Amino acid sequence: MSKFKGVVPPVVTPLNDDFTVDYASYTRVLEHLIDGGCHGVFVLGSTSEVVFHDEKTRREIIEHSAKVVNGRVPLLVGVIDPTTDRVIAHSKIAKAAGADAVVVTAPFYTVTSQSEILDHFRYIRDAVDVPLVAYDIPVCVHVKLQRQTVVTLAKEGTVIGLKDSSGDDGNFRYALLDLADHEDIFLMTGSEIVVDNALLMGAHGVVPGIANVDPHGYVRLWDAAQRGDWAAARREQERLCRLFEIVWVAQGRVSGGAAGIGAFKAAMKSLGIIDTAIMPRPRAALNAEETARIDAILKNTGLL
Amino acid sequence: MSKFKGVVPPVVTPLNDDFTVDYASYTRVLEHLIDGGCHGVFVLGSTSEVVFHDEKTRREIIEHSAKVVNGRVPLLVGVIDPTTDRVIAHSKIAKAAGADAVVVTAPFYTVTSQSEILDHFRYIRDAVDVPLVAYDIPVCVHVKLQRQTVVTLAKEGTVIGLKDSSGDDGNFRYALLDLADHEDIFLMTGSEIVVDNALLMGAHGVVPGIANVDPHGYVRLWDAAQRGDWAAARREQERLCRLFEIVWVAQGRVSGGAAGIGAFKAAMKSLGIIDTAIMPRPRAALNAEETARIDAILKNTGLL
Amino acid sequence: MSKFKGVVPPVVTPLNDDFTVDYASYTRVLEHLIDGGCHGVFVLGSTSEVVFHDEKTRREIIEHSAKVVNGRVPLLVGVIDPTTDRVIAHSKIAKAAGADAVVVTAPFYTVTSQSEILDHFRYIRDAVDVPLVAYDIPVCVHVKLQRQTVVTLAKEGTVIGLKDSSGDDGNFRYALLDLADHEDIFLMTGSEIVVDNALLMGAHGVVPGIANVDPHGYVRLWDAAQRGDWAAARREQERLCRLFEIVWVAQGRVSGGAAGIGAFKAAMKSLGIIDTAIMPRPRAALNAEETARIDAILKNTGLL
Amino acid sequence: MSKFKGVVPPVVTPLNDDFTVDYASYTRVLEHLIDGGCHGVFVLGSTSEVVFHDEKTRREIIEHSAKVVNGRVPLLVGVIDPTTDRVIAHSKIAKAAGADAVVVTAPFYTVTSQSEILDHFRYIRDAVDVPLVAYDIPVCVHVKLQRQTVVTLAKEGTVIGLKDSSGDDGNFRYALLDLADHEDIFLMTGSEIVVDNALLMGAHGVVPGIANVDPHGYVRLWDAAQRGDWAAARREQERLCRLFEIVWVAQGRVSGGAAGIGAFKAAMKSLGIIDTAIMPRPRAALNAEETARIDAILKNTGLL
Repeated sequence: MSKFKGVVPPVVTPLNDDFTVDYASYTRVLEHLIDGGCHGVFVLGSTSEVVFHDEKTRREIIEHSAKVVNGRVPLLVGVIDPTTDRVIAHSKIAKAAGADAVVVTAPFYTVTSQSEILDHFRYIRDAVDVPLVAYDIPVCVHVKLQRQTVVTLAKEGTVIGLKDSSGDDGNFRYALLDLADHEDIFLMTGSEIVVDNALLMGAHGVVPGIANVDPHGYVRLWDAAQRGDWAAARREQERLCRLFEIVWVAQGRVSGGAAGIGAFKAAMKSLGIIDTAIMPRPRAALNAEETARIDAILKNTGLL
Repeated sequence: MSKFKGVVPPVVTPLNDDFTVDYASYTRVLEHLIDGGCHGVFVLGSTSEVVFHDEKTRREIIEHSAKVVNGRVPLLVGVIDPTTDRVIAHSKIAKAAGADAVVVTAPFYTVTSQSEILDHFRYIRDAVDVPLVAYDIPVCVHVKLQRQTVVTLAKEGTVIGLKDSSGDDGNFRYALLDLADHEDIFLMTGSEIVVDNALLMGAHGVVPGIANVDPHGYVRLWDAAQRGDWAAARREQERLCRLFEIVWVAQGRVSGGAAGIGAFKAAMKSLGIIDTAIMPRPRAALNAEETARIDAILKNTGLL
Repeated sequence: MSKFKGVVPPVVTPLNDDFTVDYASYTRVLEHLIDGGCHGVFVLGSTSEVVFHDEKTRREIIEHSAKVVNGRVPLLVGVIDPTTDRVIAHSKIAKAAGADAVVVTAPFYTVTSQSEILDHFRYIRDAVDVPLVAYDIPVCVHVKLQRQTVVTLAKEGTVIGLKDSSGDDGNFRYALLDLADHEDIFLMTGSEIVVDNALLMGAHGVVPGIANVDPHGYVRLWDAAQRGDWAAARREQERLCRLFEIVWVAQGRVSGGAAGIGAFKAAMKSLGIIDTAIMPRPRAALNAEETARIDAILKNTGLL
Repeated sequence: MSKFKGVVPPVVTPLNDDFTVDYASYTRVLEHLIDGGCHGVFVLGSTSEVVFHDEKTRREIIEHSAKVVNGRVPLLVGVIDPTTDRVIAHSKIAKAAGADAVVVTAPFYTVTSQSEILDHFRYIRDAVDVPLVAYDIPVCVHVKLQRQTVVTLAKEGTVIGLKDSSGDDGNFRYALLDLADHEDIFLMTGSEIVVDNALLMGAHGVVPGIANVDPHGYVRLWDAAQRGDWAAARREQERLCRLFEIVWVAQGRVSGGAAGIGAFKAAMKSLGIIDTAIMPRPRAALNAEETARIDAILKNTGLL
């Protein structure tokens, strides 16, 4: 059985006014997640705003995370950059800094075929002795990891799992069916508003960004699903869906990406988890009016 | 008047078998382009496979290019990475290493609004004292630099020019019209199969990838346009269109990106300009059968 | 409470060699679905290849369907054409011919805004006294019925329900939540490989194309969900997912649309439900090799 | 040589308050175009809002157009509907009503492969003895007529020409090159803001929607190109580009389609060519403020 499973939030990266990482807040985020019962943490993913960080900062973030987590839960680390050899370099750093697994997307900026994606993962696996998790996120890389690509990589041992943030839950289900006999493979969904569904389908893990705000809710949802109480799972998910509406509060004024992660940060600041809601350039932070609307949602969903 | 104009090819980056840069071949490429009459060179762009190169290699490429070019023509340098502060870091390096201007895309991997794109360029301009050229390449970054965005950046002095690889030639024409009174702004097209059209519209420069294979052709086309001989410009462009068909030879077996630049490299090797046609991972080089078909096209268009 | 609910298959339209409707087979399809326990039928939808039929044929299909169904289950009728007034004309015919409700998409061919979509539905509702169901099918009409559009139309009484074939199950969930207090509104999903999920979320109905092949399976799935036996619902859905793989057998040789509905027809012919697997022009029917592969899937899923 | 060539505007369809065709205005539009020197007219295309009209109205429009045109210029007729047999029915009507050629898109609403598109055109050609023109308009039908598809259909005699409204001017150039030896084939562009370019490339005709407002401008542009005066062609095109900006005046408040054709109608009403600027449902007409801005553009470009 895989040691990876359960609620594995993608960890928000709090910043200081000068755009450096606010490690005091960052530590509190990790403790908040682990205290909340999360089964793992995923740092340097899209929610962590990984592509805004240079190599040196990424290394510090991993090292800091490894020190704080200290083996209490598995540490997954995103190694996100456009091409194979740059991902290999990040993967070596991540391994050295304490990652339990690295999370790898398809190449981006370049237009890539499924065949090249297969080679991409194989080259990385050959170059670094660290478990790989495939990260399917077409909204960022603009290519889908097709069902056959994921299944091939899993069956041949190139990857140990999948984080599916494609929103294509039917395709995710087929990956679950195709790999049902491979107990060592773990398949996680990023579709955070239908986690009850994913667990009913047999998903091994979930990667909800908004668990940064409310880890306890997702852990309750996970626990309800484990004991087969699907009505309770649904109720918890529905409350979390209402919470998730914070991501649309600033949409239109700022981009969808800035609105979503900006909302996570604004909510975490209102809840006292982090000290500032600073966003990396060129993203703008949410304003006071937007933050007030987010606070209202936090109150309506029982968090504030 | 801008010092930038004319035929400014995006320079192919030849590689050794171990994927390091083959600088001997690289020097020959630059000499081939300058000897061919090109009015500038653009290194570390998409055709240069910039996102496959790490920071150290990029710096070496710029330094090597600056040494070879040695002021004979302007040196434009792509500073392509996903986010603002990483682009600023590349820009500082490029300036120090001898760039006459840096070429900047919209952010990528992250989803970005036009307002964030404006800020992105302004933050870079504020941070580095080097002329900026906006690079519109939605096929790679998945967002278009809208007409109003480009015009605003140009009029306020944030950018000195545009490289338009969007294929939206109507939009490019409106940028030309909107900026007709700004003599210091130069607008270049990457639509390399309709360069005669772009010049008829008043484009100040062209950035044809296939000029790596045949710089003389594009210089003849440029010269014909300058003297108003549009029939000759069209004839030259039509021959170059037939040459351009090399980019589709391997398409399907490999991705479009690998097929296109792989074809440039294969042709340049056949013509003796570079020593190998190696592609960076995970891209595969063209095979013998494909290379033979490319050679046939080179013969049909008078190059071999 | 709405009289519409449960398993409501989109009915396949069997054809003769001369492309006229094979009404003998068509009658058998309807009886097969009603005998299988389906709670309604939806004729002249995308699966019925509605846009291949002219006005006269559509009228005959509705009249024939109404005669066969004879009030045993509700009869929903697609009124699919590009623009408002043409849909109004179809709706009047459908009402006169016995439809219990008509199913209406956004305009297509023309590019349409959400505001125009609101007006489209309102004009139709004003013009015809027949219940309207909104049909969200961006793969065909290339615009999504946004959450706010559906909720507005439902709350103001313009539509009585939704058939969601968008694949955006998160958005569907929000529609369920937003309309939870409106007992008279019924929301159906077309995501036929995650029907267990949709029912767990509270969907009122499902519209699975492949129920033409296996209505009993979807009715068992529906019944399991009604009694809260989610493990049984999942098992049945997983078997149906394996059956659903018939839709990809011919993909590549023919278009996705022809491969999917062609597979339904080939399977129904193999099962003796219809006499031919003819496809309307320019679609090609599946060939013998493909049909053999479909038969193998039918055997593996217990149908043949 | 083809009898089709030159400026062939897609004819706007003026409406009465009750959405019937305002034939008095319609007659004036046709006379305005023919008096303006246009070389043909194209009725029942996208600019004519063809998909808003039912079969009976379409037949009347064709008959009325044939009577007014009376052989002075060729009459091209759009036969736009989703599928093959419905297009055949329209084509028979169009031929009987006096069409010199019919203009046929790929199927729409259904998802269609290039192979099915080939068959679609061939079935139509076999069924009706009227010349076919292929109409490439992916913004409406959501599939591109690929270069090879067009060239195959032209070389085998299935189509006599192309109206390219895809905006892919590079692809259009390759069609021109591939068919350069086929004198009987005529290739027209719908890229109305780069008509000088298309003519420099060798296009045989142009189909500018805004020629409804200013046919004389496009005829002057055509004439300049015929005598090789490309500087004059460019100047005329640039003025027409400034005129074309009317299509964006209402964009945002209404959809792009409604904004564009609504602007044509508003301008034609201001110029006294038509009596009303009514739009078919669900499109809204432009308002007074928008019409005032359009009038200002008409003045600035010398028309009012």
